[in-house]
Amino acid sequence: MALGYDDLVAALRNLHDLKGALALLHWDQETQLPAGASAGRARQIGALAAVVHERETTPRFLDLVDDLAANLDHLEPPQQVDVRETKWRLDRKRRLDGALVRERAALKSEAHAVWVRARRDDDFALLAPYLARLVTIERRVAAAIDSGRAPYDVLLEGFERGATTAILDETLRKLRDGLIPLIARLQRRLADHPLDTTALGGHFAAEDQRRFNRAVAGRLGFDFERGRLDESVHPFTTEVGDDVRITTRVSEQDLRYALFSTLHETGHALYELGLDPAARGTPRGTACSMGMHESQSRLWENLVGRSEAFWRWLWPLAAKAFPALQGRSVAAALLAANEARPSLIRTEADELTYNLHIILRFELEQALLAGDLGIDDLPTAWRAKMRHYLGVEPLTDREGVLQDVHWAEGLFGYFPTYSLGNLYAAQLYDAAGRDLGPLDDAFARGDFSPLLDWLRRQVHVHGQTFQAPELVARATGAAPSAEPLLAHLRRKLEWLEAMASD
Amino acid sequence: MALGYDDLVAALRNLHDLKGALALLHWDQETQLPAGASAGRARQIGALAAVVHERETTPRFLDLVDDLAANLDHLEPPQQVDVRETKWRLDRKRRLDGALVRERAALKSEAHAVWVRARRDDDFALLAPYLARLVTIERRVAAAIDSGRAPYDVLLEGFERGATTAILDETLRKLRDGLIPLIARLQRRLADHPLDTTALGGHFAAEDQRRFNRAVAGRLGFDFERGRLDESVHPFTTEVGDDVRITTRVSEQDLRYALFSTLHETGHALYELGLDPAARGTPRGTACSMGMHESQSRLWENLVGRSEAFWRWLWPLAAKAFPALQGRSVAAALLAANEARPSLIRTEADELTYNLHIILRFELEQALLAGDLGIDDLPTAWRAKMRHYLGVEPLTDREGVLQDVHWAEGLFGYFPTYSLGNLYAAQLYDAAGRDLGPLDDAFARGDFSPLLDWLRRQVHVHGQTFQAPELVARATGAAPSAEPLLAHLRRKLEWLEAMASD
Repeated sequence: MALGYDDLVAALRNLHDLKGALALLHWDQETQLPAGASAGRARQIGALAAVVHERETTPRFLDLVDDLAANLDHLEPPQQVDVRETKWRLDRKRRLDGALVRERAALKSEAHAVWVRARRDDDFALLAPYLARLVTIERRVAAAIDSGRAPYDVLLEGFERGATTAILDETLRKLRDGLIPLIARLQRRLADHPLDTTALGGHFAAEDQRRFNRAVAGRLGFDFERGRLDESVHPFTTEVGDDVRITTRVSEQDLRYALFSTLHETGHALYELGLDPAARGTPRGTACSMGMHESQSRLWENLVGRSEAFWRWLWPLAAKAFPALQGRSVAAALLAANEARPSLIRTEADELTYNLHIILRFELEQALLAGDLGIDDLPTAWRAKMRHYLGVEPLTDREGVLQDVHWAEGLFGYFPTYSLGNLYAAQLYDAAGRDLGPLDDAFARGDFSPLLDWLRRQVHVHGQTFQAPELVARATGAAPSAEPLLAHLRRKLEWLEAMASD
Repeated sequence: MALGYDDLVAALRNLHDLKGALALLHWDQETQLPAGASAGRARQIGALAAVVHERETTPRFLDLVDDLAANLDHLEPPQQVDVRETKWRLDRKRRLDGALVRERAALKSEAHAVWVRARRDDDFALLAPYLARLVTIERRVAAAIDSGRAPYDVLLEGFERGATTAILDETLRKLRDGLIPLIARLQRRLADHPLDTTALGGHFAAEDQRRFNRAVAGRLGFDFERGRLDESVHPFTTEVGDDVRITTRVSEQDLRYALFSTLHETGHALYELGLDPAARGTPRGTACSMGMHESQSRLWENLVGRSEAFWRWLWPLAAKAFPALQGRSVAAALLAANEARPSLIRTEADELTYNLHIILRFELEQALLAGDLGIDDLPTAWRAKMRHYLGVEPLTDREGVLQDVHWAEGLFGYFPTYSLGNLYAAQLYDAAGRDLGPLDDAFARGDFSPLLDWLRRQVHVHGQTFQAPELVARATGAAPSAEPLLAHLRRKLEWLEAMASD
């Protein structure tokens, strides 16, 4: 039996090496590739992805996994995790027949191109028939995987193992109902007492920002011996092999773009760097879930990076690095870092309003999959919810239902992982504070290692040993809940209100 | 039949895409990879190389190639080229049995590590037994490929299709016998009349050099929409897919390092960029040989880049880009660009002496393979030839027989391709001048397109349609010969002598 398990590990590590090469092709495409070479890169990605797929679906590999799964009792618990998680993922794959997979891939690719045009021309009608077909095919996919459960649940689980609609309904509804009045109150207050949030604007040379953000990431614990920080149009994190690479986007007019995207991606990277190297390539050496990954990025970006203690440490360094900050105060910088205002575009939304953007999408996509909402009614439903949740309404679909690519790529059940991330982040951060005592003094000294060590112990090192809800429960002593996040956002709102009344 | 050929092209293109991914893994390793991630990168390269090897040796692919080769008459001439060259390469591979391939790979890897230590500690005795085993195994490899020919010929052909020991004996001996008295004369002259070759030294900011060399490469015809210029410890060129990447090494004390390595690698890159895109991935879309590749780099580096006309164009730009050049003259710069002096290290050798370094290695490795020279006698033989050919003698083996990695990697028959490159370069350059008229005026204006267009037509676009000797003959009207190179070097020597008598 142990022999079979060793074979599994060898096969998984070989796949992991090939997937690392694939990750490099993508990373290079976003950061290095000359413009005229993109067709060749697409071919290379296609060729290597086909190799990976082939190896993941050879009968020999599938039989090995099945044999091990049928004799789980003969394995040690950690080995059981690797077999169970590998089998779960493979089973989802092989329940889809080749024709369905090809039809779905072709449709997604076509729909993506249509979405680009539809958004450019603000023409929802162009995309609508594709969305309808995408909903239909994702329902078929869900039925092929598990016809006994609601399609949305099956799809959701593909992005967030262990999540259910029931859990989301419960937690996200609480979050929504708590947030709506908070946001409305903030909006009224800001209308009367606008806050000056310009303290991080001006002119900041890109090269100075690069140096500064490298230093910040390093101080949080990002290891440049095992990672890189580069630039790309959309910031991202990727594990290439033994190294983890993050990117940022620099605006020379506003320090916040590069700083907060660096903090965000550093959070993702610290998770990858904290996985157990002895479990490389196996589920135990792989991040738990998308929501858990997002919790790590959001924790460093929002809970740490927008805190007063963090800015007490950062401000003197920033003032030294950027002459344009001369004469400004740390209090003004903290306000700029926490600027909040209801807005139309999710990716530009602030910490207070972001989750309502997600909840809106979660509710709409759930209704689409359940057949409770028709595609043609989507733009109207979108606008109504925006008005209700955030008090703003897009004048165009480009700024509304067409803004995100996800649905045009058939990604239904993906959005909630963003809010789960925020929710886990707040709950973990509270628990770390309880375990370690107040972290503010350490932050103000630029010492983030107690928090990082706690996260490594409680989250990173476990990989996929536990599903996200259990991992949260073990780390915090309670099931995932909206309360910690809501409490955090309420405190932030009260602080902003106090500032706005000065 | 055409169907089979299309299948071949599809298979070759798939291999080409996967090899492009492999090239990216290597490029990234030399230019981007964090130090702590090298073990993971080695695994990824191993995993992907195994995939490529597997695909190249599947019975289906081999049968396809054999079938096509057995029915060559049914194909068009260009298709015949692709089949013939593919089969030739595959046949060499499949004649080696798996045990031999593994034994050889293990020995090379071990010997490489030993070479690093031997060179560091100046301890030839440490490496000697490995060299002996490498010679033995390369003889076995040669015998497995073709037991009817001299081992050295078989190995040589693996690096330079179409080359034979007889051709090399003839051309390189002429070159050697012509060069030795020239070099000796130069050395005597310089002893009495040293030349001031410091005009390109001083302090030059790396960033300024980067900008300058990018502009120079672009002016020669390097297309940054399809290529990159980066930095690495050892400059190199690699075709990644639809793009070609070159690297350079910058010394802030001496403009020549980055400039001439940029010219050299640009030459390699222009060849890759000039291959026929319609023949992508097939032998007709692949560079002819290593020697021909080197001819393109040397042509731009030496024939163009060290010419008076080139410096007439370059000097005003350089003087503007680098304040440290203020008050110096183009004549002095040209002398610095053409500094020549017998020295110990091949990679630092100048245009005049370089080929004697190669010829020395060619003669020694030929004797090793033929059994005419024992490993233990190698250091002594090395020193004797250095003294005879270049009038200098290393005090240590580190500066002698241990300086190059090639033999420790089992690369016997590789060195001559460097001199073939120089030889082809001079012959092609002469022919271009005959066809196009004097190129100097165009160079002095910074116009290199007539020369590049000629090289594209005469060399690049043909890929492997002709073997190197035939390609040279078609382009120049004569078989490859040492005469044009010797004549060029003689002119250069006479000019240097004239300078040294001023």
